[in-house]
Order: sequence, then structure tokens, then C-alpha cells
Amino acid sequence: MKTITSVREMQQTANLLRQEGKRIALVPTMGYLHEGHLSLIRRAREKADVVVTSIYVNPTQFGPKEDFTAYPRDLARDSQLAEGAGNDILFAPSDRDMYPDGYQTSVKVEKLTVGLCGVSRPTHFQGVTTIVAKLFNIVKPHIAIFGAKDAQQAMVIKRMTADLNLDIEIDVAPIVRESDGLAMSSRNAYLFPQERKEATIVYRSLLEAERRIKEGERDVPTLKRAMQEMIEAMPSSRIDYVEFVDADNLQPLERIAGDVLIVLAVYIGKTRLIDNLRWPE
Amino acid sequence: MKTITSVREMQQTANLLRQEGKRIALVPTMGYLHEGHLSLIRRAREKADVVVTSIYVNPTQFGPKEDFTAYPRDLARDSQLAEGAGNDILFAPSDRDMYPDGYQTSVKVEKLTVGLCGVSRPTHFQGVTTIVAKLFNIVKPHIAIFGAKDAQQAMVIKRMTADLNLDIEIDVAPIVRESDGLAMSSRNAYLFPQERKEATIVYRSLLEAERRIKEGERDVPTLKRAMQEMIEAMPSSRIDYVEFVDADNLQPLERIAGDVLIVLAVYIGKTRLIDNLRWPE
Repeated sequence: MKTITSVREMQQTANLLRQEGKRIALVPTMGYLHEGHLSLIRRAREKADVVVTSIYVNPTQFGPKEDFTAYPRDLARDSQLAEGAGNDILFAPSDRDMYPDGYQTSVKVEKLTVGLCGVSRPTHFQGVTTIVAKLFNIVKPHIAIFGAKDAQQAMVIKRMTADLNLDIEIDVAPIVRESDGLAMSSRNAYLFPQERKEATIVYRSLLEAERRIKEGERDVPTLKRAMQEMIEAMPSSRIDYVEFVDADNLQPLERIAGDVLIVLAVYIGKTRLIDNLRWPE
Repeated sequence: MKTITSVREMQQTANLLRQEGKRIALVPTMGYLHEGHLSLIRRAREKADVVVTSIYVNPTQFGPKEDFTAYPRDLARDSQLAEGAGNDILFAPSDRDMYPDGYQTSVKVEKLTVGLCGVSRPTHFQGVTTIVAKLFNIVKPHIAIFGAKDAQQAMVIKRMTADLNLDIEIDVAPIVRESDGLAMSSRNAYLFPQERKEATIVYRSLLEAERRIKEGERDVPTLKRAMQEMIEAMPSSRIDYVEFVDADNLQPLERIAGDVLIVLAVYIGKTRLIDNLRWPE
């Protein structure tokens, strides 16, 4: 596996690969890789000739009071894990190369970024779309793989890609979970042991909503209340949001109908976790 | 010469050309071509294997009270002129293809867009950067040619291209003028005969400033006053701005020093004209 840290070298490499007719897949990550990321790399491996995993903790997608500084980083470990999963090129640029002096451009998706995570993280998605647009222009992939855990992010990226006429297939891979159901996340590393136990409530509340829908419940306020009560019973929990939204446009629903996405963000202690579940599957 | 109206077809054509190792030049225009545009096409012809001229009157770069509807359009004439100048592909997309239902993404350059034309046209440059980013992703050029008349636009596009890591050379071609010095512009077609005569004051005021600088004047307020007095002597004129700025960052100057751009926007009747001059040349 090759590691590239220079934007220019990555771009030249991508140009050469494309001239050779190679199909490039990009797996954009913030590093501290877990099994979820590795599943994306393996999926990319099946869909392209060359797999590029980018590792970049992008400062502009963190709010001023968020965990940019604390975000876990371990490039040596990431490098081993990525190679083991079949990655070809690790692209790990520097802040100075990505946001040089005088940098002043942003890419913004309007409507899809307003609700859900956009409420408590008002500048987050602009940071995400900007860095992803940059990574797309640097790595020049034919396909890019994103995880379904960040459901809103995946929809925002799809929208940006279509709107800006980027000739790139956006592929969304299923959530990978720990054996007790907790969605894998680099931020799980923040959880204290007791919090780690309580964190399972996030997914369990989704399963409870699914069970009730299967039994015929269609009233969203009723379903929401059931989830909220379960979550609030945990001493370390604080709900950011629990929503039932149209899976096509993220608009809130009052009744279960059509393709529904149940989405939530919950603080467990100081750690903010997100998860989601589609209905029907 | 080939005319393409579909985004998808243009993209596929660009992919094929790139696979064949062809160098693509893009000349982005809003049509109603004049000698200025044709000079860009001829310049592109010298710098690339395939010249693509885009013709698209982009609604998002016009303000609500501006001349989007009135903007002159004549695709048949443009087509003949472009072909005569050596253009290979005319890309003339539809609004529906460029901004389909649900469209919601924008590209913004922050600081460079605040002053000068950004004051009276606060949404203009966001429209420009967004459409140019889209055109870049559709036409996939190696080089794009812009006219020096829109000096601020050229700088904003250069900034966006660098910031978003777009692997495209931005080439800025000199202003082409009528025999009496008026900078060529599709909007000159709006001028009534008496206005057309008075419009020469725009360039003459620039030459007057240059003459005084050559004679040793270094005080910007003095130079500005001289230009303003000349322009205001014309019955049909109204100054939007006259500024002396640093050619590298568009910051206003108080003294002539380093690379200076003298820039102005003047209404002649209802027609807004822009022009500029570099010092030293």
C-alpha cells in the first residue's frame, strides 16, 4: 500500500490511473478506522481497480465547541488496518495543503442540511460538502463509498454530487454494529465503561420502534414517545433529536407511510452518537 | 462544429476526449458573442486540442432587479461566430438540465466577492462560482479562458479553482476594445446612440488616471477625483464605483504602489458597464 500526503502527488497519481483506464474508488474517512470503515474499503475493493482511502480530520466540519482537538488519531494503526482490508493508496494530507493561507471557498447544500444534525451542528454540513468536493477533485474517483450511519450526510453528498454535476457514483454501505448492536463509530472510544453499556439504548430504541411499526403502530408521536422514554431512562443519556422522516427528502412525518427513516442523535455523557433505521428495510 | 445541449452527452464526450489524451479548453460565455469572446476562442484554439464554448445565460448570477430577461440571446448567430473563430463544440444546456427540481447547492468564495461589484451585486459572484464549478465538472477542461474585463470575476474563479483543488489552468485574456476604446460587452447592445458616445468616458477616465500616474501622481483620492469628475460630466452617467486596488487581493489602496488595478463600474443610462486597467501594465 502506498501513502500519499501531497495533494499534487495524489492528483497526478489519479490522472495517471485514469489515463490507464483504471476505475478509482474513494473511501473518505477521518481515520481511527474501525470495522465500519473496513467494510467500506472491502466494498470499494469489489467495485474498483484502485481503492483510495483518505484520512483527514477536517477542522471545518467541527463546531467551535466540538471535539476537533480530542478526535482520536492513529495513522500507523489506520495504515495497517486499511492495508489489511485491501486498500491501495492511503491519502493523508496536511491542513496546510488542504486549507492554505488565503483559503476562502465553501460548498453548501441548502435544504437537506437544515434539520436533524443541522440544528445542533449548523456549520457541520458545509464543512463536510466542502471537504468532500475537494477530495473528489483531488482523488478523481469514479465511485465514492459512504456509510449509512451518517444518513443525512450521505443524502447531502448525493445532492451535492448531482447538483454540481460531479461524474461520481455515490454508494452508501450498510451500518456495521458491535455484537450488542451499537453502531460502530470512532467516537465510541470516548465512552466510559458504564456509558458504553448504556449506549446500546440508541439502537435498542430503534428496534423497539420497528417492532411497534411491525405490530401496526402508524402514529409517529406515539412511536417517538416510546423511544424517548427508553432513552431517557438511562442516567447518562440526553436526547439531541429523535425523528421520523421521509427517506427521500428528510422532511418530518406524522404518520408511518412510504420509505421512512428513523433517525436519532443522543448524547451519552459528553459523547454524541447517531444512528438510524429504514422502514421498510 | 458540434452543438451539445445535454449535460450527460457533454460529460460523456469530455470523458472520451480525455481518454484519447486530448487537451480540452473551455470558454464559458453567456452568448451574444462579440470580438472579445472570439479572441478567447482563438486563444483557446492555440492552447488546446478541443475548444468547447459554453453558452448559458445563468439565472443565478443576476439579481432580482437585473437584466436576466432582457439579456440578449441569439444562438444561431453565436453558433456561426464561434465556428468561424475555430470552436469545436458549442455547449448550450437548458435551465432544466442545469438547475433541475430540488437543486440546492452553491459554491461561494468569501472575501474577494465582498467589495467592488459585490457591493451592488451581492449574490452575483455566488451565481458565477456555482455555474463555473458546474461547467468545469461537465466539460472537464484542462484550461479555461476568461476575459480580463471582468477582473474581479477572474480573480474569484482563480481562487475557487485553487481552493477546491480543481485541476484546471485559469487563463485570463486581455480586454478587447472598440476602435474608440469602449471595452467590448454584450451589454453595449443596450446603449442608445447618445449613450454609446458617452460610454467612451469609462475607458478615457482610466487613461487619464494612467497618464497622471505616469506623470508622478501617487495619491489615490486625487486620481479618483479626476476620474469621477470626468465621468460625472456626462449627462447619462452614474458611478457605481471607482477604486484603486491591490491587484493581488483587491484591497483598496490609498497610494499607488506595487501592482495596482484601477477598476470601475458606471451606469450609462440604465446600462451598467465595467472596465479596468493595470498599473504597471
